[in-house]
Amino acid sequence: MSTEKCFAKGSAAPGPVPNGSIRLYNMRFCPFAQRAKLVLNAKGIKHETININLKDKPEWFLEKNPLGLVPTLETPAGEVIYESPITCDYLDEVYPEKKLLPSSAFAKAQQKMMLEHFSKIPAGRNNGEDVSGLEAELKEKFNQFNKDLVERKTKFFGGDTITMINYMMWPFFERLEVFELQHCLGDAPELKKWTECMSEDPAVKATRHSVDTYKGFYKTYVEGNPNYDHGL
Amino acid sequence: MSTEKCFAKGSAAPGPVPNGSIRLYNMRFCPFAQRAKLVLNAKGIKHETININLKDKPEWFLEKNPLGLVPTLETPAGEVIYESPITCDYLDEVYPEKKLLPSSAFAKAQQKMMLEHFSKIPAGRNNGEDVSGLEAELKEKFNQFNKDLVERKTKFFGGDTITMINYMMWPFFERLEVFELQHCLGDAPELKKWTECMSEDPAVKATRHSVDTYKGFYKTYVEGNPNYDHGL
Repeated sequence: MSTEKCFAKGSAAPGPVPNGSIRLYNMRFCPFAQRAKLVLNAKGIKHETININLKDKPEWFLEKNPLGLVPTLETPAGEVIYESPITCDYLDEVYPEKKLLPSSAFAKAQQKMMLEHFSKIPAGRNNGEDVSGLEAELKEKFNQFNKDLVERKTKFFGGDTITMINYMMWPFFERLEVFELQHCLGDAPELKKWTECMSEDPAVKATRHSVDTYKGFYKTYVEGNPNYDHGL
Repeated sequence: MSTEKCFAKGSAAPGPVPNGSIRLYNMRFCPFAQRAKLVLNAKGIKHETININLKDKPEWFLEKNPLGLVPTLETPAGEVIYESPITCDYLDEVYPEKKLLPSSAFAKAQQKMMLEHFSKIPAGRNNGEDVSGLEAELKEKFNQFNKDLVERKTKFFGGDTITMINYMMWPFFERLEVFELQHCLGDAPELKKWTECMSEDPAVKATRHSVDTYKGFYKTYVEGNPNYDHGL
């Protein structure tokens, strides 16, 4: 868990990335950055984390990545990689210990197709908005995922161990309770069991916040003044 | 070039995919399906093509791929793969001759990041619509791509030979003239030179239609009655 306060506009740039390490530019509550953190943790990759103030980005960060996105990776050679699935695939390829992507081309394609489906799910909810449409859509998607687990008879997506697709999906499910949408899992018992199994995973435990901490952050976010250091 | 008329609702399903071959479900004018066709051709992969009537899809096709998308690949084992970048990566991995993706993890990530940028380009234009905004946006993007070629001093994106990213981008550029947007390349001389080099590539030659053929098809498309067999 990264416990350093975030860097904002006007801050001094961190030094070069030490040899033998890799740097993650992160926002502590960002679900996309969490994907990269999950992979770094699951594979036991030595890394350092720099938290970024996304509302008031450091100039030196925008020089490294003009899009100003997290997650962004930086290597000791100064190579810069962003977009969460791209950072995760990169890490899995460069650090061969504990491969998270399957070795078969078709199994890999299946995980990518599933991620495409998954990425079409609406991301969350705004305060006060009517959520009945969102809830109906989530329930339908969840039932499909549930069916996938039932038909394949596996504990996780893609098999009985945690592979990449599970870490790609997890940050979304971790936030269901924060947005009070957990009841949408009601008709998807196998998917609910999957969330429980995932909760036991060491990488998940190492990167998660409590529901209260998330709620505290999202309150400041909705009010237009995100406190990226909430809970530190 | 596939010259078979398209299969529509009510048609008889084709037989199983022969061993030693792979099948592409295609629409002759679809830029995404063309990506898979370019890769099949560039790598010299033995394949068969089934053209699909996308407005009136065969029931048996929707059974194979409920999303009804092209490109879709089918293997002799009945494995089904879709989403154009996923089909192309799959083909490049399964058929190791003439690799189109770079072997370095970072170079691969660079191609994926570029594809992400590229995919945010607006896709085309509708008849009669005001296009000044679209043209301004295209010119800006094209200038960025031009700068990339100038700075890296390479003939193609990612090097001096044609790698995957070039085939991912090409179908869009092939259609510029069809939509009368070619003048947007005016301030991007290296990018224009790239389009000329790409035009000489055998895989590009094998999968392209004439501007007149495209125009004929898009006319029927805009009128709401796409003639998928136009030009056969």
